[in-house]
Amino acid sequence: MADIRNPNISRLAAGYLFPTIGKIKREYIAANPDKKIISLGIGDTTEPLPAPVAKAMSDYCLALGTVEGYSGYDPPIEADVKELVAKVMYPQASIDASEVFISDGSKCDLGRLQWLFNGAAKVAVQDPAYPVYVDSSVMFGRSGDIDDATGQYDGVTYMPCTPENDFFPDLSPAKDCDMILFCNPNNPTGACASRAQLESLVAFALENSIIIVYDSAYAPFIQDPEIPKSIFEVEGAKRCAIESSSLSKLAGFTGVRLGWTVVPKELVFKGGESVGKDWGRIMGTLFNGAANVAQAGAIAALSNMEETTALVTHYMGNAKIIRETFEGLGLKCHGGTNAPYVFVHFPGQDSWDVFKEILEKVQVVTTPGAGFGPAGQGFVRVSGFGHRESVLEACERFKTMWS
Amino acid sequence: MADIRNPNISRLAAGYLFPTIGKIKREYIAANPDKKIISLGIGDTTEPLPAPVAKAMSDYCLALGTVEGYSGYDPPIEADVKELVAKVMYPQASIDASEVFISDGSKCDLGRLQWLFNGAAKVAVQDPAYPVYVDSSVMFGRSGDIDDATGQYDGVTYMPCTPENDFFPDLSPAKDCDMILFCNPNNPTGACASRAQLESLVAFALENSIIIVYDSAYAPFIQDPEIPKSIFEVEGAKRCAIESSSLSKLAGFTGVRLGWTVVPKELVFKGGESVGKDWGRIMGTLFNGAANVAQAGAIAALSNMEETTALVTHYMGNAKIIRETFEGLGLKCHGGTNAPYVFVHFPGQDSWDVFKEILEKVQVVTTPGAGFGPAGQGFVRVSGFGHRESVLEACERFKTMWS
Repeated sequence: MADIRNPNISRLAAGYLFPTIGKIKREYIAANPDKKIISLGIGDTTEPLPAPVAKAMSDYCLALGTVEGYSGYDPPIEADVKELVAKVMYPQASIDASEVFISDGSKCDLGRLQWLFNGAAKVAVQDPAYPVYVDSSVMFGRSGDIDDATGQYDGVTYMPCTPENDFFPDLSPAKDCDMILFCNPNNPTGACASRAQLESLVAFALENSIIIVYDSAYAPFIQDPEIPKSIFEVEGAKRCAIESSSLSKLAGFTGVRLGWTVVPKELVFKGGESVGKDWGRIMGTLFNGAANVAQAGAIAALSNMEETTALVTHYMGNAKIIRETFEGLGLKCHGGTNAPYVFVHFPGQDSWDVFKEILEKVQVVTTPGAGFGPAGQGFVRVSGFGHRESVLEACERFKTMWS
Repeated sequence: MADIRNPNISRLAAGYLFPTIGKIKREYIAANPDKKIISLGIGDTTEPLPAPVAKAMSDYCLALGTVEGYSGYDPPIEADVKELVAKVMYPQASIDASEVFISDGSKCDLGRLQWLFNGAAKVAVQDPAYPVYVDSSVMFGRSGDIDDATGQYDGVTYMPCTPENDFFPDLSPAKDCDMILFCNPNNPTGACASRAQLESLVAFALENSIIIVYDSAYAPFIQDPEIPKSIFEVEGAKRCAIESSSLSKLAGFTGVRLGWTVVPKELVFKGGESVGKDWGRIMGTLFNGAANVAQAGAIAALSNMEETTALVTHYMGNAKIIRETFEGLGLKCHGGTNAPYVFVHFPGQDSWDVFKEILEKVQVVTTPGAGFGPAGQGFVRVSGFGHRESVLEACERFKTMWS
């Protein structure tokens, strides 16, 4: 067979993080069939869809079985989804529906976003960060090999987010980069940048001709009313940022699949070409629309925000319980107040060792911070996504470990 | 802003074909609000979902609103979908469920497939062909500029499929290529390669170390029992082919979104690396699963094949009516017997002119053959996807045009 393998795939240091953790979990269960595992690992939603959402989706499916209710490509309801996303998710940012591109999720859009930029475009990421940013950049050829000593890829700029800088990075190493992939509130640290910090990010991007790819999947979890829920609430951001988000965490759509990317009309390349126009061409060629049923669900979720945000309240309640548990045990932790993740610090220890120790001693699955990048070393991410009784039980088990 | 535009986007000669046609249609309607348009253009399904499919999806959605029925990432039913695809869609080809990768559609997979191969890998396509093959290859950087005289991109090998070669191309120009993108039954010509022709394709690929990317989205429309419904029914294909397909046309899932790609275990790169393993890494990083509701629908569609194939029978009935109408008018046409498309020949005329003439004179939307590639010039594709009464009405209108 021809030697046409994408060489960048072989640069990837390891399997994608979450399947790797899933594998360790399954192996543990196989070896210990009598143990009862609690998963606070992958960050997967657990609570049922809000009743009006399930009902609307169910009705929509029945209608697809009728001549009047059937539709094929480009469901006519997509226009309503765009309108609702613009109105409900960006009340402060004046986003027009024509700037909203509906998709099957933020992760998928982040992969497709690689097509928007030339191969030489350089990437900067928060460290630690959601693995897709780096992995997709490596796969597209934006990096050299990994440095085994540091766990960092050549050609990718890592901006450490640590307790020392309150998890908002020194941006200066990204000065010569072309893109900054920025997740706020952050996964995995649970930290959330303030308005002033976001203003400094936008000013830096404008000054250095950098495009910010802003991941706001966790924005609905922000409790502090002073913190912007979209980068576009910051003056100037429409000239330097793209924002990607989804209903996965807000409305429990991890399995239903519905996300979007906002590309402002003002955003242009150096040559003056519209970024949104290119994005439309990419989406039109490489994608064929979010599932119509998911779009029907999105309309219901965004039209019944009281029921939808009850899910957020539930998960944030879990995060509070987790955070208070670890604090009560004298462990230092971060996040959990404007994000559903609690980032627990075990200074001097290896993340994977702590992860394995927790799994083996009390059968709770977490996520090793080092899996998100070198600066995550010494941390473990504990997810607030779970049934309340599971979280309470996990916290009881944590108490047996460290008290 | 930084000059990081993907330069390959600007190489694209025009908008993606179907939105372009949609725009012309909308403009015509705006200018002629009293005219009644019939669309036999884009190839979009029109008949309701089979009753058991709509019911299963509806029930699944209601269950997502309950604690017991809810699931998030990686719906547990995906294993069943893989099993059913392997069993129901590949009864002659011995495909294992582990070789089936479920997705949100064949078009989306064809885009992601670009990531599997290095940038130097050269592409050959049937001409005419589904525009995504060439457009995604151009966007990924596998071509030079378009030659305005021929309408062909430098660096892409076009294999003309014409009445003269019975729409099965001379493969020899692809000798030095690395991939052949091959659609069978073909969109847009409606032609279908025979077993002997497919055997010659596989032999050619093996001999020249080429990977065949085989698009079998229209395979369920094959009526001739002698023609393979999968490339994997041909000896040796598992060592040189990937196959992508979907429920869009078979089960009316154009809006529901469910497809798959089969990557056989035997398929390896020159260095011996498993293609399937790389594909798994790509799907795991750039994708997050097909909508769970679509997967529930897929299980119902593949478990109730009598109801599902009734849709195929309906559309093939339309294709027969269309073909007989044009033949009765003394026009030469192809396809329509093993595929839902009829490719009507207007020798010496421009496809776009004929397309516009049909729209303006009798208000039927078709698709210009030249939109699928240079060799489509002089043809118009008429789709069998439509309600029966619309097809009958369109055929009456065609008769007023040419009789």
